[in-house]
Amino acid sequence: MDIQRINPTEKWSDVVVFNKMAHFVEVPEDDSTDMTGQVEQIFAQAEEMLASVNSDKSRILSVTIYITDFANMDALNQAWINWFPAGSAPSRACVKAELAKPSYLVEMAFVAATK
Amino acid sequence: MDIQRINPTEKWSDVVVFNKMAHFVEVPEDDSTDMTGQVEQIFAQAEEMLASVNSDKSRILSVTIYITDFANMDALNQAWINWFPAGSAPSRACVKAELAKPSYLVEMAFVAATK
Amino acid sequence: MDIQRINPTEKWSDVVVFNKMAHFVEVPEDDSTDMTGQVEQIFAQAEEMLASVNSDKSRILSVTIYITDFANMDALNQAWINWFPAGSAPSRACVKAELAKPSYLVEMAFVAATK
Repeated sequence: MDIQRINPTEKWSDVVVFNKMAHFVEVPEDDSTDMTGQVEQIFAQAEEMLASVNSDKSRILSVTIYITDFANMDALNQAWINWFPAGSAPSRACVKAELAKPSYLVEMAFVAATK
Repeated sequence: MDIQRINPTEKWSDVVVFNKMAHFVEVPEDDSTDMTGQVEQIFAQAEEMLASVNSDKSRILSVTIYITDFANMDALNQAWINWFPAGSAPSRACVKAELAKPSYLVEMAFVAATK
Repeated sequence: MDIQRINPTEKWSDVVVFNKMAHFVEVPEDDSTDMTGQVEQIFAQAEEMLASVNSDKSRILSVTIYITDFANMDALNQAWINWFPAGSAPSRACVKAELAKPSYLVEMAFVAATK
């Protein structure tokens, strides 16, 4: 068992797996959209990341959500509920924070189990 | 070995266990109290969560503390010191963040080992 | 397999290891320096922590960076790139947050694999 890194760059790897646990962080690739669009993009990106390490969205253990404005909480929750398969919701923290680009409305840090 | 989820709802599970590691996040159920009361409640809730997955407060690996006002740091630390058994303090990050309800003074994300 | 805690105090342990995964959090010991100095200190401290649990900087899985001012992002990234061995960048979240002392410019929470 050792460490697997997907697409390591100078600053980060897209996914890092050890001990059958995958770590990855997402911000929306297209940050011109509203909260719903940004959350949906993060989830689409997360599905790609999960697939790259033999996992899927039913195997997410925890998500830390950084949100820039709690006025967007309802949009977040609606997209969230639509995305997670029934019975597979993770542990979840959600706090307000400014993000690296002013256009980002949300950033999510995931820990997931591989298969 | 697979994933155990305690009380999964649409938005989150109370605890998620994989690899003998439990992930859970707590905000105070009664948010009308002061910092000491809120921290003590979080710890009482954490004890329940830990018991539900065959763990206890001596087995906490890391805690991320989100606090809304550093003026409450002393109250946090006093309750913290009172709660953790000697020699079992976790790794700990503590940062200031606004939380999902203005009445919340503190939120904590835990990672703990099960037995 | 059980829990290893390095230097447990009343408030935290320097490092906590379980399941070959090490958790530790660093703020700069000397907080009188600029961002470059603070980041370099955190990395020097991290190397000590990693060595204490039979790991090294090529085995970091994820880092959560709390930064007080995004104007310091370039300094962070330069020190970051200088420090991580090629091909070993972790998963990384970076958000803005006020820290426990006004003189702290950055705090980092690490998860690393031991050997």
